[in-house]
This record gives sequence, structure tokens and C-alpha cells, in this order.
Amino acid sequence: MRTLKLTIAYDGTDYAGWQIQEKRNQKAESRRQRPTIQGTLERAIRRILQERVRIVGSGRTDAGVHALAQVAHARVRSSMPCRRLQAALNGVLPADVVVTRIEEAPPSFHARFDAKAKRYRYVIVNGPVVLPFERRYVHHVSVPLDIGLMRREAKMLLGRHDFRAFHNTGRQVSNTRRTVTAIHIRRQGRCLVIDIEASGFLYTMVRGIVGTLIDIGRDHRPPGTMAAILNTKDRRRVGPTAPARGLTLVNVVY
Amino acid sequence: MRTLKLTIAYDGTDYAGWQIQEKRNQKAESRRQRPTIQGTLERAIRRILQERVRIVGSGRTDAGVHALAQVAHARVRSSMPCRRLQAALNGVLPADVVVTRIEEAPPSFHARFDAKAKRYRYVIVNGPVVLPFERRYVHHVSVPLDIGLMRREAKMLLGRHDFRAFHNTGRQVSNTRRTVTAIHIRRQGRCLVIDIEASGFLYTMVRGIVGTLIDIGRDHRPPGTMAAILNTKDRRRVGPTAPARGLTLVNVVY
Repeated sequence: MRTLKLTIAYDGTDYAGWQIQEKRNQKAESRRQRPTIQGTLERAIRRILQERVRIVGSGRTDAGVHALAQVAHARVRSSMPCRRLQAALNGVLPADVVVTRIEEAPPSFHARFDAKAKRYRYVIVNGPVVLPFERRYVHHVSVPLDIGLMRREAKMLLGRHDFRAFHNTGRQVSNTRRTVTAIHIRRQGRCLVIDIEASGFLYTMVRGIVGTLIDIGRDHRPPGTMAAILNTKDRRRVGPTAPARGLTLVNVVY
Repeated sequence: MRTLKLTIAYDGTDYAGWQIQEKRNQKAESRRQRPTIQGTLERAIRRILQERVRIVGSGRTDAGVHALAQVAHARVRSSMPCRRLQAALNGVLPADVVVTRIEEAPPSFHARFDAKAKRYRYVIVNGPVVLPFERRYVHHVSVPLDIGLMRREAKMLLGRHDFRAFHNTGRQVSNTRRTVTAIHIRRQGRCLVIDIEASGFLYTMVRGIVGTLIDIGRDHRPPGTMAAILNTKDRRRVGPTAPARGLTLVNVVY
């Protein structure tokens, strides 16, 4: 068996997220409208290699979220060279899922357990109109945002905290503590770009943080909001979850 | 009557080009699969202003070609302020057509006759893979392109020439002489970006030039090819027409 490390870019707009839904096998998936990225990759590999291979991602991305460089591993029997496999996979994959790299990895490599950090980017068009070219990849906020206020509050997120308040879902997670190692907010033309790096993320964590930062930028929250959320874990202080379309998994660090 | 100057951005992927097809009225269009940009705008204006308005563009863009700032004029009876009209139109237009600006223009303003120059941009991904985010807006050339060769030949296009050889269509045009005022080719990451400005363009002229430049960049053409094409007007020396998806009308100068 070989262990392969795959790097994958995808436009998540038309997908139900990364992960194959539980209680729902691949056959059932193909009958539904919105496939998953994982399921799409597994079907492509089966078609090329004629073997059933499980693809294990660094983590799930939610429905509609994009990736510039999601990482996954796969253990395969085939001896097909990486380059040839990559070309063959891209030949059968839909155009919104692209394998940008395949490399040999040590047998013990695990895309999820070995991930040391992840970086997400959230893009907001902060102006009157969203251009057709960016519409699938940005969130539109037409009222002016105060980037100074946003930066000041965002700084409070740095370090190890309990992010339970941002974990907006029924899924049970035993440990809701995570370490945010960097958060940068910058203007880029008409856009506001938020980069956030952490040891790991809870479900909807980035989008909850961004939603709260947008409320802060509109001056709809008192100073100290972020610190208060982290201290009290009070979900009612968190802003509305920002839409998936503005979010991209940019990088996974091993 | 007021004369309005509209600036429009569109993703041309799902459109049959700018111009309403001859022998095909708007009603007929709505029954077909691929609408035109002009028809889409006229329907939106009719819906908002309750008047039949003809939209006159600076020129047609071919099926699948995009625009960052196409310009058009419209003569309307309505006194609705420009800002409100813009917001109302963007409210009813599909997301791939966006009015980025509306302003009052002198009664004599004509989007086509008054246009002094136009700038088009062609983007080539010159690397192993096209990312999902760029797939609608680029042409993929995986073999390495020699940008030096391309630049040397492109320079020959500058000035006033008969571009008949690049006019790859049955449409009759009385005068096929045009003036190219600038052509720039640059690398931008994995992309090759070709900007070309001219007094006007013939149908498929940019895509014919780009197709020829790609052949030159692959070293499939002898030096002097561009000059020979302009001198002999020999269509057989022109490269294959580059696909519409890589082409964007960037700017119209008045």
C-alpha cells in the first residue's frame, strides 16, 4: 500500500461540503442534488484506479465553503505515478474540483491528525456593488465598516480560548478550546480580507467570528465584545453567522 | 427625454454575446437557452421603468466574452434618479450582469459613435492546472510560452493596419483598417496577461491575435509572422481563434 498526500482546490458553491454525509452512502449521494467534495473525489479515484479508496481530509469544510489547498490522504494499492494519477483525476473530475498536487507520503501520514494549523480567508466586498466575477466568493456588506474597530476586537481572539460560543450547531464536541495564532484584517481595493490561522476550528467558528466582526465594524457592538464572548461563552453576543460563500480554506500546515 | 450613460460588468459565460440577434425579437429570445446581455438589460429596464428602451452598447462582445466596464446609452422618459435606477436594475438583473454606474449624459451622447478607444484583456493560465475560481475567465495553455518571442511579434501590431486576416467571420465590414495604440504582455503568477488597446476591433480580432501569439510563444511560427499577416492579409497564417472565456472588455474611452 502507498500513502498519497493530495492537495485539492474547489469551488464549494454547488457542494454540500467536504464530508460524505453519515447514514448516506455514495450511491445514495449520487441521487441527491448536492454532492460532497469527498464523495466526488472517491468516485473519481475509483473510476481511474478501479479500487475503493477512502479519502481522509484535514477536516470538513461546510456546505458552500471553498478551498484553495485542502489536504487529504489516501492509501492505494495502485502503482500509478503521482503525475499521471493527477492528470487522470483532473480529466474525470468536474471543473469545480481540481487536484493541484499529489505526492508520496510516509505510511503513517494522516491528513487530519497530523495537521498542525489551518488558515482560512474571508472576503467581504465593502462597496456598492458585487462584480459578476467575484459573486461566488465574497460576502457583500454595502455599509462602511470601521476596520480599526474590527482589528482592535479581533486581537482579543489571539491565543488559547474556549470558542464554544461560536460553535453554532447541534454536533457534540468534547473540547471546544482552540489556539488562534494569527488574525489579519486588511483592505484590498473594494474588499476587506480577513485571514485567520488556528490550531483547529470548530464548526462555523470562522463564520461566527466574521459575523461578529462585521457587527463590530458597523459599530453595532460595544467595545470589549470579543473578550466578553470568550469569557462568558454567551452565544447571544455573537453576530449572525456570515455566509459560506465568502470563506476559503487557504492552507493546511503539517 | 434624458440620455443615460450606463457602465456594465458581466460574466459572459452563459450569454450569446452582447447584441440581440437580428431576426429575433426579445420575445423569441426569452424562449431560447442563451439570452443576450443587451436583451437582458432591456427587459430589466422595461420592468423597472415601464417603458420600452433601446440600449445601445459601445460595440458587441462575442458569445462567452466578459466585460468589466462595457458602456451603453439609453434615452428614457423616466425621471428616476440614477442611483435609484441603478439599485432597482441590479435588484432584478441576474447576478452575472451588474450595472456598476449610471450617469446623466448630454443628449447627443452615443455609446458606439463617440467611443475613441477600447481596451481588452486576455488571460492565459500557463501552468499545469486551472483553479476552479478562474476556470470561467481564463484559457489554459499547459506548455511553456516564450514571452520574449510573443512581445517581439506583438510590437508589429502597433499603429494603423488592415486587420482583415484576423476577421474570421462571414459578416461584411467595409473598412477593416484599425489602429492599435498599445499592446502589453506580462506574467502575473501562473498567468500570462495580454492587454490590447485600439481605436476599434473587428469581430474575433483580439482572439485571432491571441491565438497567433500563443502559436508564436510555443515557437510554432517563424519570426516575422505578424508582419507577414498584416502585409499579405493571409488568413492561413493566423493561429486558431483563442476561446472566448479568456477575454474581457476592460475599458471604453470617450
